[in-house]
Amino acid sequence: MSYTILTGDRATGSLHLGHYVGSLRQRVELQHHHQQTVMVADLQGLTDNGSNPQKISANVLNVVADYLAVGIDPAKTTLCLQSALPALAELTMYYLNLVTVARLERNPTVKSEIIEKDFSRSLPAGFLIYPVSQAADITAFGATHVPVGEDQLPMLEQTNEIVRRFNRIVDREVLVECQPLLSRVGRLPGLDGQGKMSKSRGNTIMLGASADEVHKAVMSMFTDPNHLNVSDPGQVEGNMVFTYLDAFCEDAALVAQLKDHYRQGGLGDVKIKRLLEDCLQTLLEPIRTRRAEFSADKGELMRILREGSQRANQVTQGTLAQVKSALGLDFFALD
Amino acid sequence: MSYTILTGDRATGSLHLGHYVGSLRQRVELQHHHQQTVMVADLQGLTDNGSNPQKISANVLNVVADYLAVGIDPAKTTLCLQSALPALAELTMYYLNLVTVARLERNPTVKSEIIEKDFSRSLPAGFLIYPVSQAADITAFGATHVPVGEDQLPMLEQTNEIVRRFNRIVDREVLVECQPLLSRVGRLPGLDGQGKMSKSRGNTIMLGASADEVHKAVMSMFTDPNHLNVSDPGQVEGNMVFTYLDAFCEDAALVAQLKDHYRQGGLGDVKIKRLLEDCLQTLLEPIRTRRAEFSADKGELMRILREGSQRANQVTQGTLAQVKSALGLDFFALD
Repeated sequence: MSYTILTGDRATGSLHLGHYVGSLRQRVELQHHHQQTVMVADLQGLTDNGSNPQKISANVLNVVADYLAVGIDPAKTTLCLQSALPALAELTMYYLNLVTVARLERNPTVKSEIIEKDFSRSLPAGFLIYPVSQAADITAFGATHVPVGEDQLPMLEQTNEIVRRFNRIVDREVLVECQPLLSRVGRLPGLDGQGKMSKSRGNTIMLGASADEVHKAVMSMFTDPNHLNVSDPGQVEGNMVFTYLDAFCEDAALVAQLKDHYRQGGLGDVKIKRLLEDCLQTLLEPIRTRRAEFSADKGELMRILREGSQRANQVTQGTLAQVKSALGLDFFALD
Repeated sequence: MSYTILTGDRATGSLHLGHYVGSLRQRVELQHHHQQTVMVADLQGLTDNGSNPQKISANVLNVVADYLAVGIDPAKTTLCLQSALPALAELTMYYLNLVTVARLERNPTVKSEIIEKDFSRSLPAGFLIYPVSQAADITAFGATHVPVGEDQLPMLEQTNEIVRRFNRIVDREVLVECQPLLSRVGRLPGLDGQGKMSKSRGNTIMLGASADEVHKAVMSMFTDPNHLNVSDPGQVEGNMVFTYLDAFCEDAALVAQLKDHYRQGGLGDVKIKRLLEDCLQTLLEPIRTRRAEFSADKGELMRILREGSQRANQVTQGTLAQVKSALGLDFFALD
């Protein structure tokens, strides 16, 4: 059965290995069997970068280059830009009347992000309401499935609450509820094993990283601090090199064997790091090349994003028209 | 000097004498000397009617008929519909990132409305953020002047805060600050002297009221409860008939004379009510006739609103384009 899928990324920076493992890899698969839209969420990126719009505007095309580099195919996936789709803002305005402030303040994802970003009393209104904006995105595309991590499930719950409330008020099935597509793999931890991979923590490898950057990053990776001599027994759990081998080495049997060997002693860190580096260099080399090619032609990136946004505009305007008609606010269309 | 003026009404019901005195009368004057836009605010009407969209959709054309009936001239004033202007929703999304939740919760106008409407924990998010939506409306039209009552001044303050914050962030003067056009007359109290005129309290005379309805309404008006006999001295303060004579009788000298007479005693309530009725019938008769003519031709109402919205769309899209360009998010335009 073919799903209608919406997914995307905030345009706050270029993408890295964490994105690759957590979402990009699946998108390349999903596009062959499903109707997939991938959105560059520049508006959402602004919700906690209101004072720094350059951070967003400078990264939109970087994200598109990353998408294309990993193999997202604009002929199969609709690649679009959030700010180019007015229907999303308009739907947000309608949906905001169907959600209480108290409900938004209870959203667990938003709550933990507020703490993480240390907003306290300076919480921007746009950030508080971004789950409603996401509901607009998801429903505008009629998405039946949304790839998310466990931590994003409250967002889909909020979306479905809005869908049910809207349909009940207008007494017809205008909007479609969505389901999560939970990714099988957990979030890739940072190179330092300290929390998630993020550019600002410097514990990541970018998709466009040079061969030398990859080499240096792998060689400085966190292993087992008690594994001082090659002959010592080493620990595999919490050893980032093995965590990454699990994620990136296609030969699972070999990784299992190496884990045993490492646990027993006699396997040095440099050996396993070399294997990991091989895997990563093999993965990243063609991505880097394609990324450089795409990045060199901004006009082409823009053309691809514009064409996808054109298609996305049709779809989202269709949903908006249905919503306005159900509300009785479809008086006329402007030229 | 010619002002750029934005004003309008929530489309929650037909308009009444309170609107006439408080705003409609001035708009008819203003349109001769200034660039005036009058907006039917259906989206804002939804912010506290999310579950009852029919209330809004059913009243949009009623409000337009009221505007035309009192003499707002679509050749002089741009008459437009809020929900037909996508730029307003888009600008709201950008501005929401420049305002904190705490700031919105402190807005005195919103605070008192929350109490009045008894929202407490069920406050819709759309209602909390409507000052930001108003800022979008005002700035989208580049309004230099906004006709308001004293109680609405915090809305303009919020708008100007957003204007200054935005211009500072993008380091150019994209948005224009606005000034209040305070109306000289206070708010017309209801026929019962209990608070403001409002349809839901049944203490009002609608602009489309029949001659008989006007007669009955005036005859049942609150005067001085201690003025039992014609010969008794009567009180003018708090006597709604005199309050209304002040608002609607053009012969101020006559009203002053009658007040003296009433205070001294010897002037009956029926006499002053007859004078008030005369003034109101004279005022409302042509309005009622024009209103009935316009209401009979919904297609024409729609055409007028559509044409004005077309013009308003050009203006507001122009502002949006400048805002997006200043943010660096003007990647491309869709067909």
